[in-house]
Amino acid sequence: MSRLLPTDLEWMSDALRLAKKGLYTTSPNPRVGCVIVKDGVKVGEGWHQKAGEPHAEVHALRAAGDQARGATAYVTLEPCSHYGRTPPCAEGLIKAGVARVVGAVRDPNPSVAGRGYEMLRQAGIEVVESCLEPEATAINAGFMKRMRTGLPYVRVKLAMSLDGRTAMASGESQWITGSAARRDVQALRAQSCAVITGADSVIIDNPSMTVRPDEAGLDIPEGLRRQPLRVIVDGAHRVSNEATIFDKPGDILIAARTPPASPINRDTGLGALSYWAGERDEHTDIDALLCHLATQGSNEVLIESGAKLAAAFVSAGLVDELIVYCAPTLLGSDARPLLSLPLSEMKQQIRWQWQDVRMVGDDLRLTLRPDTSTAAKKA
Amino acid sequence: MSRLLPTDLEWMSDALRLAKKGLYTTSPNPRVGCVIVKDGVKVGEGWHQKAGEPHAEVHALRAAGDQARGATAYVTLEPCSHYGRTPPCAEGLIKAGVARVVGAVRDPNPSVAGRGYEMLRQAGIEVVESCLEPEATAINAGFMKRMRTGLPYVRVKLAMSLDGRTAMASGESQWITGSAARRDVQALRAQSCAVITGADSVIIDNPSMTVRPDEAGLDIPEGLRRQPLRVIVDGAHRVSNEATIFDKPGDILIAARTPPASPINRDTGLGALSYWAGERDEHTDIDALLCHLATQGSNEVLIESGAKLAAAFVSAGLVDELIVYCAPTLLGSDARPLLSLPLSEMKQQIRWQWQDVRMVGDDLRLTLRPDTSTAAKKA
Repeated sequence: MSRLLPTDLEWMSDALRLAKKGLYTTSPNPRVGCVIVKDGVKVGEGWHQKAGEPHAEVHALRAAGDQARGATAYVTLEPCSHYGRTPPCAEGLIKAGVARVVGAVRDPNPSVAGRGYEMLRQAGIEVVESCLEPEATAINAGFMKRMRTGLPYVRVKLAMSLDGRTAMASGESQWITGSAARRDVQALRAQSCAVITGADSVIIDNPSMTVRPDEAGLDIPEGLRRQPLRVIVDGAHRVSNEATIFDKPGDILIAARTPPASPINRDTGLGALSYWAGERDEHTDIDALLCHLATQGSNEVLIESGAKLAAAFVSAGLVDELIVYCAPTLLGSDARPLLSLPLSEMKQQIRWQWQDVRMVGDDLRLTLRPDTSTAAKKA
Repeated sequence: MSRLLPTDLEWMSDALRLAKKGLYTTSPNPRVGCVIVKDGVKVGEGWHQKAGEPHAEVHALRAAGDQARGATAYVTLEPCSHYGRTPPCAEGLIKAGVARVVGAVRDPNPSVAGRGYEMLRQAGIEVVESCLEPEATAINAGFMKRMRTGLPYVRVKLAMSLDGRTAMASGESQWITGSAARRDVQALRAQSCAVITGADSVIIDNPSMTVRPDEAGLDIPEGLRRQPLRVIVDGAHRVSNEATIFDKPGDILIAARTPPASPINRDTGLGALSYWAGERDEHTDIDALLCHLATQGSNEVLIESGAKLAAAFVSAGLVDELIVYCAPTLLGSDARPLLSLPLSEMKQQIRWQWQDVRMVGDDLRLTLRPDTSTAAKKA
């Protein structure tokens, strides 16, 4: 009978800490950490750094060497059972003579899905599952959702005043939130596989939408840095190739209702520029766009757009997380709304649940997820 | 030389705890607590319960009896030096033979203002001032402000959705926030001397605006319960005597631009109904109204009104504290704004500072005070 021991929780916490080191770098792979413990002493540890490079278990087994024999391996995700870019980790653990494996969560990837654990058990290794499963699931919310549903985990980032406004009527808005909040957004971008914005934002604000780790104080080793795919939802091909976004390094996808008559030219040395087209109700089909992004390996998608596009995702029920930076200021009732959502009755309200509230510099960061309770929760 | 001892902080904390027992009951007097300690042991304690009844020191000295001789008295507010409804507390402490008095904050009342401490020192008592002064000032923010400036401490209470809306365009709004937030508002009312609302709110929502301690779970002894003065800002005398507010017990003041042609009749058994008139820029003069309320003994005033009247107080810079209950819901861009504030440029924004953020049931309660920093704090 396989049992969870009290010390298992501590070692798994340590493995999760390692897994989080890959927050900005592993995509499209999940973040995974591994710790190998023998006679109460850690003899090896590792984390997956980058797709195509060794898995966490490989690093940890290398570090442990002969000491892995008879040891316990803690893995934040079920060891893989298939030959991918690397040999299966379950096989590696068996060969190294590990006696016991404690796993946090099953790999929902259909090519693993329990087979990794099964291989270990077949080899006579004791396997304990589901140690700190919620924590391990949370750090790979995007990978888990993509594997289970074929859609990425979608975050919408918004910045508003205390009275829920994003800009004056004239469009004047720089800056509502402070520099700490803007740095925090860089971290959100860096952990995303794709960042979606709209044609209006590109035309009016002319942003670069890149991750600038040094500016944002993000500790990402040079060799592991990557730019998320920048996606411009530009239904009617209004964005011109003069936009700053095309001058910054990294791949770009333009999502439109129809293929372009004259595609934008871009210096290919900076990154690829591709098109995706899909239409629904006279708009770009954002639901299908998300499917497409998942197919391309996007686990986590960040929406940084204006009030209309963000509202389209919210209205369609496609958003998993709302992140609102709230500045302690009043912009007044003529200023622009948080989301362009034309609702007329209380029963149409869109309810959420608080997940996290904290200060980021002078601003308050509110994180919410859709309210999944069936009944209205009002007393 | 008078020095603060480490144990002084502990005993003063205890005295502050006692003072807070008067949160809902002492007005127009301040909340005051007193602890008498001899040889490291508490021999007496007391708190001021109600205007016209004994001060905290009197209760504590009675409890201490002969043990007060040579003891230290901790008082959260400078002992009074004048013959009011009760004899001066400084005299009481002298007569009881107290050896040392530790005070938290000077009484800004012009008839005290240091004279209490002076009387004690003249009698040879060691006096230590300013022990936990910020804490002692905070629990009497209203009394302090009224004594120093002739204006009450003004709180504006608002309830909004995550996108800063208070009702659908139709006016439909019950309920955006949950029952815990509504109970919390009852506590705010109960600690206020006056609650201000507007004619629109009375006409449309027809509220009672009373404190209902049992319903709100407020532990206020029967004999100490009071209703704050309810103030209706009704510039043009639009409220009729059919309004529910007149049927509920407690005094009511109608503030208008001009005296009424035909005053509202009210059952005097329920409480007084009076009028105050003042005009400025074709509106009721709310600045002068606040002065009037302070003159009548209002320390803390709560504004519970619609978007226009609340915005008038905010625009005029008359607000000391904004308390916003934020529900985790989106009401959309057609819904009603938090405040009717027609601003057009970022430089007109009204900035605040976060004081407190906490959950109240399913809602988030945000407390802010005006941003007093001279320069904009944005980086």
